[in-house]
This record gives sequence, structure tokens and C-alpha cells, in this order.
Amino acid sequence: MSTTTMLGYFAGFLTTISFLPQVMKIWKSRSASDLSLGMFSVFSVGVMCWLVYGFLLQETPMIFWNAVTLVLALTILVMKIKFDS
Amino acid sequence: MSTTTMLGYFAGFLTTISFLPQVMKIWKSRSASDLSLGMFSVFSVGVMCWLVYGFLLQETPMIFWNAVTLVLALTILVMKIKFDS
Repeated sequence: MSTTTMLGYFAGFLTTISFLPQVMKIWKSRSASDLSLGMFSVFSVGVMCWLVYGFLLQETPMIFWNAVTLVLALTILVMKIKFDS
Repeated sequence: MSTTTMLGYFAGFLTTISFLPQVMKIWKSRSASDLSLGMFSVFSVGVMCWLVYGFLLQETPMIFWNAVTLVLALTILVMKIKFDS
């Protein structure tokens, strides 16, 4: 594996796992009122586009991590909608 | 410009501007207690790595948007630390 690909995996690992403490925080506190619905909606659509961009570049780290990030961002979005109402 | 590069710009545009409503929400409410400090710290380091990965791939959309996202993520981080204390 090239150094570039390894860095891609590391970059994606960090930006993806960064969502985990946010997911856990919302789950524990049952509160997400300070989070912006606009942010997580637009972000999710953007991550879908990064995913397709990764497919077109045939860059596995981009495909893999954007897929996982999408799941986490959508989880935050669903919890926000649920706990805000 | 290739379709792939155009999609990269669009993807980055979306994930980057998604941070703007969050920045404005925190600025207006002067509150970021539901946001995870862990998330935005690890996310910022991750975006720095994406930036270097973009340089190595010589993909301008990745370099450009990750640089802007880094500024916005750090802004959120600074506001969270400031308003939480």
C-alpha cells in the first residue's frame, strides 16, 4: 500500500471516528438542540457526493470512509429529529 | 474541467458550507454545550490529514475545500471552548 493511500485511510479514520463521541453524547443526553439541522442535512448530501467522487477516482480510502461517515451523520440527523420533537 | 473534478468541487462545497449554519447557530445562541469537544478536535486533525492527502493526489477540490473546512471546524472549536467556559 502506498504512503498516499495509507494517509487517506488515516485521514478518513480520524474524520469518521470524530462523529462517534457526538453520536454517544446525543444518545446519553437525549439532547441535540445546539446542533444545526441544516448542517447535518447538507453534510450528509455532501458526503454522498464525496463517495461518488471517490468511486470515480477509484480511491478506496475515500469510498470506505465516506460510506461509514454517511451512516454516522445520518444517525445524528435521525436522533436530532427524534429528540427535538 | 473533468466531470470528476466538478463533482469533487460540488461535494466539497456541500460538506464545507454545511458548517456555516452550525457556526451561525453557536454564534447567535452563544451555546455549544450539546456539541462534542472530542468530535471537533479529532475532526480538525482529520481534515488536516485530508488536506495533505489531497496535496499528494494533486486533487485541487480536495485541497481547496479541506482548507476552508479546517478554518470553519477550528472556528466552531474555539467558540465551543469560549462559550462553554
